[in-house]
Amino acid sequence: MRATVMHAAGDVRIEEVPDARIEQPTDALIRIERACICGSDLWPYKALEASEGARIMGHEAIGIVEELGSGVGRLKKGDLVVMPFADSDGTCEFCQEGLQTECVRAGFFGNGEPGFDGAQAEALRIPQADGTLYTLPSSPDETLMPSLLTLADVMGTGHHAAVTAGVEPGRPVAVIGDGAVGLCGVIAAKRLGAEQIIILGRHGDRTDLAREFGATDVVADRGPEGVERVKELTGGQGAHSVLECVGADAAVRTAIKVARPGGTVGRVGVPQSEAMPGGEASFFANVTISGGPAPVRAYIDELLPDILDGRIEPGRVFDRTVDLDGVPEGYRAMDEREALKVMIRP
Amino acid sequence: MRATVMHAAGDVRIEEVPDARIEQPTDALIRIERACICGSDLWPYKALEASEGARIMGHEAIGIVEELGSGVGRLKKGDLVVMPFADSDGTCEFCQEGLQTECVRAGFFGNGEPGFDGAQAEALRIPQADGTLYTLPSSPDETLMPSLLTLADVMGTGHHAAVTAGVEPGRPVAVIGDGAVGLCGVIAAKRLGAEQIIILGRHGDRTDLAREFGATDVVADRGPEGVERVKELTGGQGAHSVLECVGADAAVRTAIKVARPGGTVGRVGVPQSEAMPGGEASFFANVTISGGPAPVRAYIDELLPDILDGRIEPGRVFDRTVDLDGVPEGYRAMDEREALKVMIRP
Repeated sequence: MRATVMHAAGDVRIEEVPDARIEQPTDALIRIERACICGSDLWPYKALEASEGARIMGHEAIGIVEELGSGVGRLKKGDLVVMPFADSDGTCEFCQEGLQTECVRAGFFGNGEPGFDGAQAEALRIPQADGTLYTLPSSPDETLMPSLLTLADVMGTGHHAAVTAGVEPGRPVAVIGDGAVGLCGVIAAKRLGAEQIIILGRHGDRTDLAREFGATDVVADRGPEGVERVKELTGGQGAHSVLECVGADAAVRTAIKVARPGGTVGRVGVPQSEAMPGGEASFFANVTISGGPAPVRAYIDELLPDILDGRIEPGRVFDRTVDLDGVPEGYRAMDEREALKVMIRP
Repeated sequence: MRATVMHAAGDVRIEEVPDARIEQPTDALIRIERACICGSDLWPYKALEASEGARIMGHEAIGIVEELGSGVGRLKKGDLVVMPFADSDGTCEFCQEGLQTECVRAGFFGNGEPGFDGAQAEALRIPQADGTLYTLPSSPDETLMPSLLTLADVMGTGHHAAVTAGVEPGRPVAVIGDGAVGLCGVIAAKRLGAEQIIILGRHGDRTDLAREFGATDVVADRGPEGVERVKELTGGQGAHSVLECVGADAAVRTAIKVARPGGTVGRVGVPQSEAMPGGEASFFANVTISGGPAPVRAYIDELLPDILDGRIEPGRVFDRTVDLDGVPEGYRAMDEREALKVMIRP
């Protein structure tokens, strides 16, 4: 089968690889209907060392169940499913609590982890399929597919940022980053009742979309000027809830500084440092730092109806669609900020 | 008047200083009945540079109101009061929310901050006295005085650690540090209903006291062995709530590692680094980091009745009492871990 293989930073190729196949009784094999490129795929695209090992990329997809291991009970062939970016057994104490990304048997797709290939391919083996895959209504309207695809990661991740940042009506929200996750964070914040939503970003087309999603203010300044501007917009004190949707050190530092004392930062951007910048400042301001890899599996029940009814349209973050051959160019376009998020139809 | 002046690391002297006096209409002047030395006073005792300026030390006291500015309305001369370690106006939005340490006009006593002298002295000027001081019942039983004194900081701080760490019945708690704050954290955790309370500390006399306060397990190992031991004690996953009562980098790192995925660390130890160690690990484990300088002023209403009724005895953390002349020796004894916490009767 054909798949997207990253060999090293900047070196993404479409290659013939061994067919994905059932290996464990709890596996499912899915044919990929839609996949996409994630902002987090750009980290290895910038920094992967060849010595770290080539990997099939991708951790977001909608697929059709093609084959099932003998131990899978809940799924059937032909099901249209969305795959969260991490697998989960669905039974451990963390899964029961709705924290599937901390499943005791969790693994992350497309990350170079043995046994977890990527979704930017024709097919993919899904371990622990009963716990991992979420069955969608069959034959949804074609126009809904992009939004359904965001349930695999970015919409659930933006929602996790909003939930862990304690978004609620009457409390100002700041969203750090105008990438796909930040934009989904805006959708999530509005959906949870926030009235003032300030997005910090400097890409006009993206912040325009953020306004359509519900952002009330855009702050293009960075550093101290950006912090000052958020404070001005929030009566001098900062935002009660801050959604950190970037992960870079400067973004985390800004997130903490724009938080109101006693407020909360929900982090979903993958941290780029072992130590968290601004940890002393957050302490003295009694700012809580929450978040982590989003248990998107848990959030689908809540978010799906809003997508099906058209109340939210996170699929609008996709501004380009490619086939497999177009994936390397898709990486380049996202890396150079020409594309916001690239959808793949293998 | 006489006061404790720190000139530089290791250089604490009892000196004649200008009398404390009313400067603003909102000030009160209190005569110090009891003060004490805090674990956090040991940081400048180890590291203060002479160039940073000499300061009158101390931020915890019970006193008697001796004089009042013309604008003070709630207090009267002769009131027995406890002073929280920070002042607060009692009226701003943060004070109204019970987050007095984030008062827009807050200042910290005994820290070298202009206008905020220290309590290890015969008398002290209290700015914003109406908002800051808490009036105690007059003439409490003498044996209650040590516990009442802990309301100025360590008991309220331990309580803040427990509250921000989300302590509740049925969830294992780990307390990092067997100093006075850690021990008060044990009291607070038990008071909030925790059944399993693991204290990480290696001073037998202190962990013995922790057991009397309600700790169910003591872990003397540090580093990876200590983390492993906490996991063993909690069914393999770690503690839902972790009270970080030290502030040193290694302690913060341990706090994060002993937290259960999805759990919460309540930090009250003053951080020793700008960046928070373990910030990446906390992200991947969805561990929330909360806490900060405790709004002890807000907690007195809740904690005082338990002290007056003898249900909690945080005053047992004091194991030595000195007069002003004994303060330098008190610092030495605490620094060398001969004394747990030193009370001062000026």
